[in-house]
Amino acid sequence: MSGFNQPISGNDLARFSGPNTFMRLPSANALDGLDVAVLGIPMDIGTSWRSGTRFGPKQIRAESAMIRPYNMATGAAPFDCLQVADIGDLAINTFSLADSLGIISESYDAILAHDVIPVAMGGDHSITLPILRAIARKHGPVALVHVDAHADVNDEMFGMRETHGTVFRRAFEEGLIEPDKTYQIGLRGTGYGADDFTEAQGWGFQQFPAHDLWHRSLAGMGAEIRRDIGDRPTYVTYDIDSLDPAFAPGTGTPEVGGLTTPQALELIRALGGIRIVGCDLVEVSPPYDASGNTALTGANLLYELLCVLPGVTKR
Amino acid sequence: MSGFNQPISGNDLARFSGPNTFMRLPSANALDGLDVAVLGIPMDIGTSWRSGTRFGPKQIRAESAMIRPYNMATGAAPFDCLQVADIGDLAINTFSLADSLGIISESYDAILAHDVIPVAMGGDHSITLPILRAIARKHGPVALVHVDAHADVNDEMFGMRETHGTVFRRAFEEGLIEPDKTYQIGLRGTGYGADDFTEAQGWGFQQFPAHDLWHRSLAGMGAEIRRDIGDRPTYVTYDIDSLDPAFAPGTGTPEVGGLTTPQALELIRALGGIRIVGCDLVEVSPPYDASGNTALTGANLLYELLCVLPGVTKR
Amino acid sequence: MSGFNQPISGNDLARFSGPNTFMRLPSANALDGLDVAVLGIPMDIGTSWRSGTRFGPKQIRAESAMIRPYNMATGAAPFDCLQVADIGDLAINTFSLADSLGIISESYDAILAHDVIPVAMGGDHSITLPILRAIARKHGPVALVHVDAHADVNDEMFGMRETHGTVFRRAFEEGLIEPDKTYQIGLRGTGYGADDFTEAQGWGFQQFPAHDLWHRSLAGMGAEIRRDIGDRPTYVTYDIDSLDPAFAPGTGTPEVGGLTTPQALELIRALGGIRIVGCDLVEVSPPYDASGNTALTGANLLYELLCVLPGVTKR
Amino acid sequence: MSGFNQPISGNDLARFSGPNTFMRLPSANALDGLDVAVLGIPMDIGTSWRSGTRFGPKQIRAESAMIRPYNMATGAAPFDCLQVADIGDLAINTFSLADSLGIISESYDAILAHDVIPVAMGGDHSITLPILRAIARKHGPVALVHVDAHADVNDEMFGMRETHGTVFRRAFEEGLIEPDKTYQIGLRGTGYGADDFTEAQGWGFQQFPAHDLWHRSLAGMGAEIRRDIGDRPTYVTYDIDSLDPAFAPGTGTPEVGGLTTPQALELIRALGGIRIVGCDLVEVSPPYDASGNTALTGANLLYELLCVLPGVTKR
Amino acid sequence: MSGFNQPISGNDLARFSGPNTFMRLPSANALDGLDVAVLGIPMDIGTSWRSGTRFGPKQIRAESAMIRPYNMATGAAPFDCLQVADIGDLAINTFSLADSLGIISESYDAILAHDVIPVAMGGDHSITLPILRAIARKHGPVALVHVDAHADVNDEMFGMRETHGTVFRRAFEEGLIEPDKTYQIGLRGTGYGADDFTEAQGWGFQQFPAHDLWHRSLAGMGAEIRRDIGDRPTYVTYDIDSLDPAFAPGTGTPEVGGLTTPQALELIRALGGIRIVGCDLVEVSPPYDASGNTALTGANLLYELLCVLPGVTKR
Amino acid sequence: MSGFNQPISGNDLARFSGPNTFMRLPSANALDGLDVAVLGIPMDIGTSWRSGTRFGPKQIRAESAMIRPYNMATGAAPFDCLQVADIGDLAINTFSLADSLGIISESYDAILAHDVIPVAMGGDHSITLPILRAIARKHGPVALVHVDAHADVNDEMFGMRETHGTVFRRAFEEGLIEPDKTYQIGLRGTGYGADDFTEAQGWGFQQFPAHDLWHRSLAGMGAEIRRDIGDRPTYVTYDIDSLDPAFAPGTGTPEVGGLTTPQALELIRALGGIRIVGCDLVEVSPPYDASGNTALTGANLLYELLCVLPGVTKR
Repeated sequence: MSGFNQPISGNDLARFSGPNTFMRLPSANALDGLDVAVLGIPMDIGTSWRSGTRFGPKQIRAESAMIRPYNMATGAAPFDCLQVADIGDLAINTFSLADSLGIISESYDAILAHDVIPVAMGGDHSITLPILRAIARKHGPVALVHVDAHADVNDEMFGMRETHGTVFRRAFEEGLIEPDKTYQIGLRGTGYGADDFTEAQGWGFQQFPAHDLWHRSLAGMGAEIRRDIGDRPTYVTYDIDSLDPAFAPGTGTPEVGGLTTPQALELIRALGGIRIVGCDLVEVSPPYDASGNTALTGANLLYELLCVLPGVTKR
Repeated sequence: MSGFNQPISGNDLARFSGPNTFMRLPSANALDGLDVAVLGIPMDIGTSWRSGTRFGPKQIRAESAMIRPYNMATGAAPFDCLQVADIGDLAINTFSLADSLGIISESYDAILAHDVIPVAMGGDHSITLPILRAIARKHGPVALVHVDAHADVNDEMFGMRETHGTVFRRAFEEGLIEPDKTYQIGLRGTGYGADDFTEAQGWGFQQFPAHDLWHRSLAGMGAEIRRDIGDRPTYVTYDIDSLDPAFAPGTGTPEVGGLTTPQALELIRALGGIRIVGCDLVEVSPPYDASGNTALTGANLLYELLCVLPGVTKR
Repeated sequence: MSGFNQPISGNDLARFSGPNTFMRLPSANALDGLDVAVLGIPMDIGTSWRSGTRFGPKQIRAESAMIRPYNMATGAAPFDCLQVADIGDLAINTFSLADSLGIISESYDAILAHDVIPVAMGGDHSITLPILRAIARKHGPVALVHVDAHADVNDEMFGMRETHGTVFRRAFEEGLIEPDKTYQIGLRGTGYGADDFTEAQGWGFQQFPAHDLWHRSLAGMGAEIRRDIGDRPTYVTYDIDSLDPAFAPGTGTPEVGGLTTPQALELIRALGGIRIVGCDLVEVSPPYDASGNTALTGANLLYELLCVLPGVTKR
Repeated sequence: MSGFNQPISGNDLARFSGPNTFMRLPSANALDGLDVAVLGIPMDIGTSWRSGTRFGPKQIRAESAMIRPYNMATGAAPFDCLQVADIGDLAINTFSLADSLGIISESYDAILAHDVIPVAMGGDHSITLPILRAIARKHGPVALVHVDAHADVNDEMFGMRETHGTVFRRAFEEGLIEPDKTYQIGLRGTGYGADDFTEAQGWGFQQFPAHDLWHRSLAGMGAEIRRDIGDRPTYVTYDIDSLDPAFAPGTGTPEVGGLTTPQALELIRALGGIRIVGCDLVEVSPPYDASGNTALTGANLLYELLCVLPGVTKR
Repeated sequence: MSGFNQPISGNDLARFSGPNTFMRLPSANALDGLDVAVLGIPMDIGTSWRSGTRFGPKQIRAESAMIRPYNMATGAAPFDCLQVADIGDLAINTFSLADSLGIISESYDAILAHDVIPVAMGGDHSITLPILRAIARKHGPVALVHVDAHADVNDEMFGMRETHGTVFRRAFEEGLIEPDKTYQIGLRGTGYGADDFTEAQGWGFQQFPAHDLWHRSLAGMGAEIRRDIGDRPTYVTYDIDSLDPAFAPGTGTPEVGGLTTPQALELIRALGGIRIVGCDLVEVSPPYDASGNTALTGANLLYELLCVLPGVTKR
Repeated sequence: MSGFNQPISGNDLARFSGPNTFMRLPSANALDGLDVAVLGIPMDIGTSWRSGTRFGPKQIRAESAMIRPYNMATGAAPFDCLQVADIGDLAINTFSLADSLGIISESYDAILAHDVIPVAMGGDHSITLPILRAIARKHGPVALVHVDAHADVNDEMFGMRETHGTVFRRAFEEGLIEPDKTYQIGLRGTGYGADDFTEAQGWGFQQFPAHDLWHRSLAGMGAEIRRDIGDRPTYVTYDIDSLDPAFAPGTGTPEVGGLTTPQALELIRALGGIRIVGCDLVEVSPPYDASGNTALTGANLLYELLCVLPGVTKR
């Protein structure tokens, strides 16, 4: 079909078989020549309620075996034009959140020394802060599409400044993101006061609470965001708990009244054309969904993100 | 913040820790000074299909630990203005449905001797009949908002007149409710004939079958009901099986084609301003949802009910 | 009520009790006098990803015990006017897909020697090809309502021409169906190229991808299909994976972004008046939904299909 | 092979197929000509902790499909010489324990009007009291082999005298059993005082606590019991919680430190030659073992009981 | 019965009801007057494989509701002579293992300022190091009974010196325990070399590998240990993974070929008479055993430990 | 340590991370230089009851990540002296049992063209027949150690001569094994007559029924078998259902009253010194044990088999 890596076809090797790489793509140790590096960051020590996301990358990879290369809905064919490989997992320190965040940041610096788009499978959401630090070192402050039930803008949790609930306050404070090009989509649930959300609005964050999105397509909203971003370098961080627990039961801090998978697909598909420089999908917790369907959903969202990366053509 | 009881903060004690009270509120033995008494009625001997709701209160409490005090969507802050405590479980007789119904009724009389709003965690739906008896003894016939897949207006089940399927016929016959201010929302499924529903319409019940509610917001319908009720004392009984099994798999008699959690939230939020004198959330059956998400949904619906109780302010 | 078979009432025998027939209808060995024969085809050797559908008929029957005879939404009363029985399972050869397909085809010839509508509980989707062969031998090419996430029009899988992914290409090639009266509803996901779907469009198949159906009622689309079919003999094949995994997690090849159960009910209810000559519900895989709710959904869809069979009256 | 009912062979119909009768034996409505009547008593309203045993008979039957007719270890061939059928479930009243116990007793009187050995699948252990009442009406006081973690000799539970914890005190008081030919095997756990066990010893009950049985064969103990019983009519009641939760996790009141399945098989096999006039297997709770293995164990214990019924020959 | 705290009786309040304290004992904030303080340390950030033990204390408490006050096997009646209460959970920092270990140590110092025996529910095994530090500060080096699949004597894991795998090397180095009165029971599995175990033997540790214990009673070994310890102050740390996964599936690092629950009971019962100054039960991971039976086993082992504390009488 | 492949250490990469190869060994495409080739044969179409073993290799590999290289009990250090790699899965045809058996046989011929010991992860037991055909082509008839609940010596199942229940009759008929050096260990359960077992005894098979093995060590029996085999080339086939369902719930045809994992370890360890030319571990069915513990057990048994391969030294 081309010189690009292809997922193993289900007609060559039964889907329940083969390597446990993302979509059964080749694994790669070296980054040279890659356009996209898919990687796992298996970690759950930054989470405040249910743990288990340390097994997220493994289960997302397992379930991704069912995905075929061509997007029937959009015509995108990411493996026609991008060299994609699974570069394995980062060697985080499972006993220290602080160390792990450092390891992630350094690893991303090394990855970003190449001209490659990193696509991360979490792991809890605390991984996104060190990722953004590395991203900003390379690209400067980026636009941020942040799909999540939670704003993750706490100042501290148990006195800690770097956890899965403080990521985007830190990112704002450190100038890693462009505040007025930061879009928080799917916010809902309970908090300690209105300013849990409104303070971030004051910084410029554009927030789209879930209750404003119920019962309707997100294609239009996605298109507006795309236009608003223009050609800025953009990072997309997708917390699976943005989805309603009916659609993604296996996650660490589920919140009722969330988005549907059709909405998630509409949103991502609308982002085509944005200059995405990295993305992640976080908070899949396998012990809380033995069926694997939450991980399957995560795998599909990652695939849809691949389909809107710069350079992907349709056929 | 005030002199009112507050849930333990997730920053003071990890959410997976602490007492197993509703929202980790203080427990209370005495009712004096309480505005709202949350209580459990752990029972499943009134159910006709899957059992397990006897563990409902325990799991709802466990999952409620994730809920924070402030409602991000509505601004309601129930713990700013109401004294709420968890008063534990009623000591039902697990070997006798008839005895248990008597115990519930008497216990409610004792509770209602205080100026307190009882908020019950079931348990199967048979608990609502003795509750309504005590409610009516205090308040006279009440308006009833009844959200459920089933009308629960059978005359008998196996020759028994008091089970989870006969509650609202008994309530009607005994004059516990105002028939034309009784709203049954979410009805669906199969029965023995049209009059399974229509007979109750003849009594005055206003029925909103699920298939009339699909694909749309319930905010408007909720507002109409609120206006229709006016300032009558009102009881709200919420059967978790009103939700589609996708949203609430862990229940005793699931019916497909049900409501969504966004609709449930819209409906409850629209009831703000009604003079609610009591409410319950029933039919969460933990063995049928090991993830805990059905109980989490139940806990959130109870929290949303707290947010629309008389006297709750927004900030 | 009539001379027709009736499901055992929940007031005569507790619902968790009694024979494991569909809706606790009488079982029948002889077909004489039956209008509708419900049967199981317990098989999973035609599936390419998760297995387990061999236990589908058993669990669908178990969960169907909760369904009562009268359709509250539509007024249909199928057991007022049709003689329905459960005729048990076909004795497929669990070690050979090819043999099993032959057994199904021959069994259907024997069934169709009577004036009876066969209603099959799968099993994986490969059962539908031999069914259509027998159907076409009796009725000629039929209109086909095919609700599914997948078009199932592969040419081969692992070199095999008869699997759960090749059914409708074979049916087209063999002239078992009327191509321009073939409706594929709910298609989505990933493939190998646009012609995975478009080739079948070229044969005349009318395709309704899931993403065109999100957020809206299917009643209108169903009515259009009904009008387009007119009085042709029609077969309805319902793959449970047409539903989103939130609504039907227990299936072999789940695809995110699917239909909802309200949509499924709207669609089937709109088919009333069509001359249905047979139908099936396939791909329920019990090991992937221990709650039984996927099977419950399958049982309800089969019940709704009973409610739109020719001759069913409403009351 | 003979004129006797035979289980459907796995070579005639796939084991995951066929009727949901015990071992896929024929079902029977009439008792004439039967030597053994297998029946279900689906009930859990007599239980004090986890419910769910109402689905016990259904799951035991489902799992029994794997059992073949010949006992490889003992050579017993129960279907060579006994006419066995599954006579379905008793129509208990799921809303009233007291009524249900009455129904069981009357149903057993009707069954025992025939010369048939009833073999019951529970249901919680409260079913054994009304069974023993009917048994004693026919046979006079019987010897009792009672395998259980609990002695079930409470006087009352919540003021009720007939629950799953009071059965054998009532049986003693009412003279249904011969106290000094009553053997309680597998007792363990916690209580309120030594006399929880010792009072029954005072009545003559012979108790074999689990901790005296660990790490050894029960064949010898079983043989001693057999000799001690002699030719008395004997009832065997087998509570699945006599087994350690490792071997039978799906039960209502599990107690650690229990028997193993090898011990259970040794014990039952040693009872061959006793004049068993009835038996039951109780307390299988399907929601607590989704794998079905506890029910499979229960089905095998029932099969082993069939193998030691009077008149069973070996080949 | 006495002036001592008693568990709520199952006849006063249904066992599935009531406070979620250990054995439904009273909770206590103050330590004055307590002989035994049961507490939870909900933590899983010190674990290297499956997480989830953060929910251990909650589930152990839930399952402990089934335990009654009197030990039928040994006659021990701990609540006749000891004042026992549940003092809740330690407020660990779920984002930092190092901080949490400090919090545990300080909390234990505060507890041990009273004349009370702390009984801890873990949490992963890393909690035992800070506990031993506080214990040694009060009692000097203690004898240690350590029941576990793993020796937990690694020097470092990922460069960290304080994790669930390094506890007893640290305890040895810091002089918290008497090396030749340290008993490691149940060791097995795989390692990096013989000295994974033998180095600790060189320090004086007495090791009892699982394969030397299979198929036999541990009563004798327990008695030998008791004699060898004499009247030294002793700490007992019980890792649930000492049990075979058949008996305790819900744990973080299961190893096949382990102990049985009968052996566990024999071992603990043999320790009666030792001067136990504290104990813990660790590594119950609820997400890996939805049935609750692993937690039930843990609760029973804790109860058995209560039964051998100094001062417990038998009746 | 040597030039041999080593599993990734848990101190280099968190155990829940890394490639999904057996024990996180390197994967290999070429066989040159390998002493041992670990491979998966993911298949379940030869099974007669529960399916799911198609996911066996994937889950065994996942759980094997916890195993370290050195055997603490025996001192075996297989990676000191053998070059071991994971060569991935065979590309079976999931739609045809007959084709798949042919593919396996041919693949084994290719593997055995090298001087390598194949170690297979099933898959259902039907894989062993084509393996033995290839083994016999290379080595002539081999001694066979067959650990299983079932003798698998049926002549036909549904008229098929090659399924998971007919393997060893075919192997005998085709002269693939030495009948009097064939050891069947763990047999039990039910059948159609005594000759289900005895016919194979007539061929020379030595059978060790489970009930003769209860409550005792298998070390002696294993040693006798080792001596009896002498230096013959030997194949070991290990069906996980030889274990009791308490120890291995996740399998396709569980039988109660089976072996324990201590016995399994004793048996395999006793085989050290035999000239093993190949082995397999079959019938792990992941959907029936979501905890992963059955696969963990399978992984450990495979590891123990590695430890007794010719050439493995101890240290």
